[in-house]
Amino acid sequence: MTQLKHYLETRKKLKAYEYVMWLMSWDAETEAPKKALEYRSKQLEVMAGEVYAIQSDKHYVQAIESLHEQLDTLDKDLQTEIKKEFRELRFIKKVPKDAYIAYQVLLSKSVPLWAEAKHKNDFKLFAPTLKEIVEYQRNLVKYLEEEHLKGYDLLLDMYEEGFTQKEYDFFFDTLKKELVDFVKEVTKDPKPLHPKLVNGPFDQDKQKVFSEYLLDVFFYDRERGLLKTSEHPFTSGVTSVDTRITTRYLEDNLASSIFSTIHEMGHGLYEMQNDPKYDDTYLHGGTSLGIHESQSRMYENMIGRSKAFWQVHYKKLQEVFAPQLDDVTLDDFMDYMNHSARTLIRVEADELTYALHIMVRYDIEKRLISGDIEVEDLPKIWNDTYEAYLGIRPSTDTEGVLQDIHWSGGSFGYFPTYALGSAYGAQIYDAMEKDIDVDQAIKNNNIQAINDWTKEHIHQYAQSKTPKEIMLIATKKPFDPMYYVNYLKGKYAK
Amino acid sequence: MTQLKHYLETRKKLKAYEYVMWLMSWDAETEAPKKALEYRSKQLEVMAGEVYAIQSDKHYVQAIESLHEQLDTLDKDLQTEIKKEFRELRFIKKVPKDAYIAYQVLLSKSVPLWAEAKHKNDFKLFAPTLKEIVEYQRNLVKYLEEEHLKGYDLLLDMYEEGFTQKEYDFFFDTLKKELVDFVKEVTKDPKPLHPKLVNGPFDQDKQKVFSEYLLDVFFYDRERGLLKTSEHPFTSGVTSVDTRITTRYLEDNLASSIFSTIHEMGHGLYEMQNDPKYDDTYLHGGTSLGIHESQSRMYENMIGRSKAFWQVHYKKLQEVFAPQLDDVTLDDFMDYMNHSARTLIRVEADELTYALHIMVRYDIEKRLISGDIEVEDLPKIWNDTYEAYLGIRPSTDTEGVLQDIHWSGGSFGYFPTYALGSAYGAQIYDAMEKDIDVDQAIKNNNIQAINDWTKEHIHQYAQSKTPKEIMLIATKKPFDPMYYVNYLKGKYAK
Repeated sequence: MTQLKHYLETRKKLKAYEYVMWLMSWDAETEAPKKALEYRSKQLEVMAGEVYAIQSDKHYVQAIESLHEQLDTLDKDLQTEIKKEFRELRFIKKVPKDAYIAYQVLLSKSVPLWAEAKHKNDFKLFAPTLKEIVEYQRNLVKYLEEEHLKGYDLLLDMYEEGFTQKEYDFFFDTLKKELVDFVKEVTKDPKPLHPKLVNGPFDQDKQKVFSEYLLDVFFYDRERGLLKTSEHPFTSGVTSVDTRITTRYLEDNLASSIFSTIHEMGHGLYEMQNDPKYDDTYLHGGTSLGIHESQSRMYENMIGRSKAFWQVHYKKLQEVFAPQLDDVTLDDFMDYMNHSARTLIRVEADELTYALHIMVRYDIEKRLISGDIEVEDLPKIWNDTYEAYLGIRPSTDTEGVLQDIHWSGGSFGYFPTYALGSAYGAQIYDAMEKDIDVDQAIKNNNIQAINDWTKEHIHQYAQSKTPKEIMLIATKKPFDPMYYVNYLKGKYAK
Repeated sequence: MTQLKHYLETRKKLKAYEYVMWLMSWDAETEAPKKALEYRSKQLEVMAGEVYAIQSDKHYVQAIESLHEQLDTLDKDLQTEIKKEFRELRFIKKVPKDAYIAYQVLLSKSVPLWAEAKHKNDFKLFAPTLKEIVEYQRNLVKYLEEEHLKGYDLLLDMYEEGFTQKEYDFFFDTLKKELVDFVKEVTKDPKPLHPKLVNGPFDQDKQKVFSEYLLDVFFYDRERGLLKTSEHPFTSGVTSVDTRITTRYLEDNLASSIFSTIHEMGHGLYEMQNDPKYDDTYLHGGTSLGIHESQSRMYENMIGRSKAFWQVHYKKLQEVFAPQLDDVTLDDFMDYMNHSARTLIRVEADELTYALHIMVRYDIEKRLISGDIEVEDLPKIWNDTYEAYLGIRPSTDTEGVLQDIHWSGGSFGYFPTYALGSAYGAQIYDAMEKDIDVDQAIKNNNIQAINDWTKEHIHQYAQSKTPKEIMLIATKKPFDPMYYVNYLKGKYAK
């Protein structure tokens, strides 16, 4: 079967390019010398051109189409993969090449421009570029539209297969109803936190020692990954045997490195626990952003911020920072970590208020892609929506509409997966508790039992199942936002 | 001129592949997780195949040939480059593809096998593979031989253009005559060294602080490079704006990190100070291994081990390690750093005895490639030659013929450039002293004046000049080994 052979040979080649593109990006974000970035960009452009040429080669396209017509001759995983690749062909077939290339050029300049505008609190500087990006997104939606998938739905589906406005509207409406007033109530009379936790400073080397300790606690395999630092923490994996993570050490914020490390470890573990049989295929990796985020959030918030966890590990933290935390009690630390407040910046938001930040962005994106509002309206609408959901109003665009990188990189439809991930996480955690005694596993310092459960029910499948299938396998139910609501209310009502 | 256009377009592409191959290698040697290496090898093999296909594409080959026929229509640098590339074509045209591929497969297994044999002190384990490698090298010489370039000369010329047995024989005969007895004399009654310097231990974090300090002293630009750790220190550069170095911190050896850092800094500086106009060409980099080594050795030994240097910087070393070195005087430290002894291991050899280690290897390689001796004879011949030149005899092959990685990677003709580099360095240093007051520059902590000189006379030219041309530009004379002999005798006769 020569089409299959051609497909597999090309896949092997493209996997190698994927690897080098991944490595270039990892290097640039963690250590490449500053003045090397321009040289690197030129090489990246050449490699991207090579990839495009291979992917759009007519024999490769024909092989995918032909295999797609005879799916039943293929094994299950290959069927899934071919369906996925066949769907990807729409970008090559339906998006005019010129428009695509012009857009890539636009994107290569837009991120630095956004950063400058954010730095200078100057929305007008970025607005014309953002307008072009939005224009492209609106056109993209038209190029790609299908009978049952149009408008913003099409973008949402790219990030979370099968999740469109209907599902998200229901999700966010539930949150709006259940959480907006609840948050105001919980954050009304904030309890004062221990000054030693609030003030620091926290030695960065000691934070590093503790982060490495945490990775041991979570059985993060250093022979298949590593921990490094970067300006913004992230996970970057390319195979089950190479999944790297970063964190950052802030002198004035002890919680930042602790929970960034656990969060990224959660992402990393997902890909490390993918069945290695997917390493050489396109099915390696997380099945969606939402499921990915469910794992990082579950490990970070539900395990990492639990009392059971710190009953075991708080002593070690005190030891590493001795004598700084000697008179800070476990309860002080619990209050500090699980403190909630209505603030302006998404990435600094706590577990309870986080979803409200996402609601703001979902509302705005929906209206922006539909053409209901325009780029020049954004600052005012942003501030109004923050006032409506969080009861606070940004005084600058730096702290408002310019705070996130996503739109400058053309990511529309991405934000909602953050909130969805947290909500998935609550439902998955609930299901896991029915199978194993999670609290006891944490208290016994036996996180491996939890990792085994997530591997069996989620991680091993990589991209061979859709997000909806994963939720059914892991929780035996379709997604239901009330698990999340109940979890948050149960925790913060106290 | 369409041939030129095709050549330049292909060069742009190949430079991008060069970049990603470089990055894969840098990553593997500094941080890639252990279990990722097999996956990485597969991707590397695919990329190497892509490079081979582009390099051997008949249109590209034709473009080079056609440009080579009309050299005078090209600018000077392009002429040099085309001559170089035209010469490289011999590998594609004269070496049978099957033999080449079989050899690459052999090499992919030979290094780990050598490491195992070295670890187990089992030469027989490695001998059959080494025999195959030597066989290929002997055949290679036959495939490529030219009227005036045959046998071992052909291999030597690959590493140091224009340097063949005639030149090397003269060089090593001079050293043999001048140094063998001198070394025995100097190392006869070793002066005892300060126990605090010999015994350590030296905190690795403090060594790191001092290495970073040294890089500042030498004006190594962190925006175009970085310092990391690896098992064996090395320099890895790909453009003048990205030249990275590594060092290693041994708890029981303070000199190791200090002089590894300066040595690699010397290599790094050479490529950083290449004229940036060569970045996008094949002329970026050092012109030969020998000239490269002349820079690392000159900075390491002539500047880095000088009394003037430590008169300025020894206080800082004491400060970083305080109070460990408080009662170790500058003279104690000078004795420690410039101590000479006849030992068995090349990479641990001191400045004076180093060339004798190389002489052993040169003698053996010459006879091995000519067929005068065979692989199975190596252990005995190795030990006999050490006894002849250094007066000591290895008791194991681990400490003898198995100590170096080079032959397992197919590098024959490489070793002699190490000694040649030191000798170049002495002659270059002598010339520099005629132009600027080097000692005063060191005492004024103004190494930039030295860097400016090396940039002007050597570094800027990258590969646009041959090693012989560089020696003439920098020293106004052809290479003369007596500068090296006189330097060593002047220093060690004291």
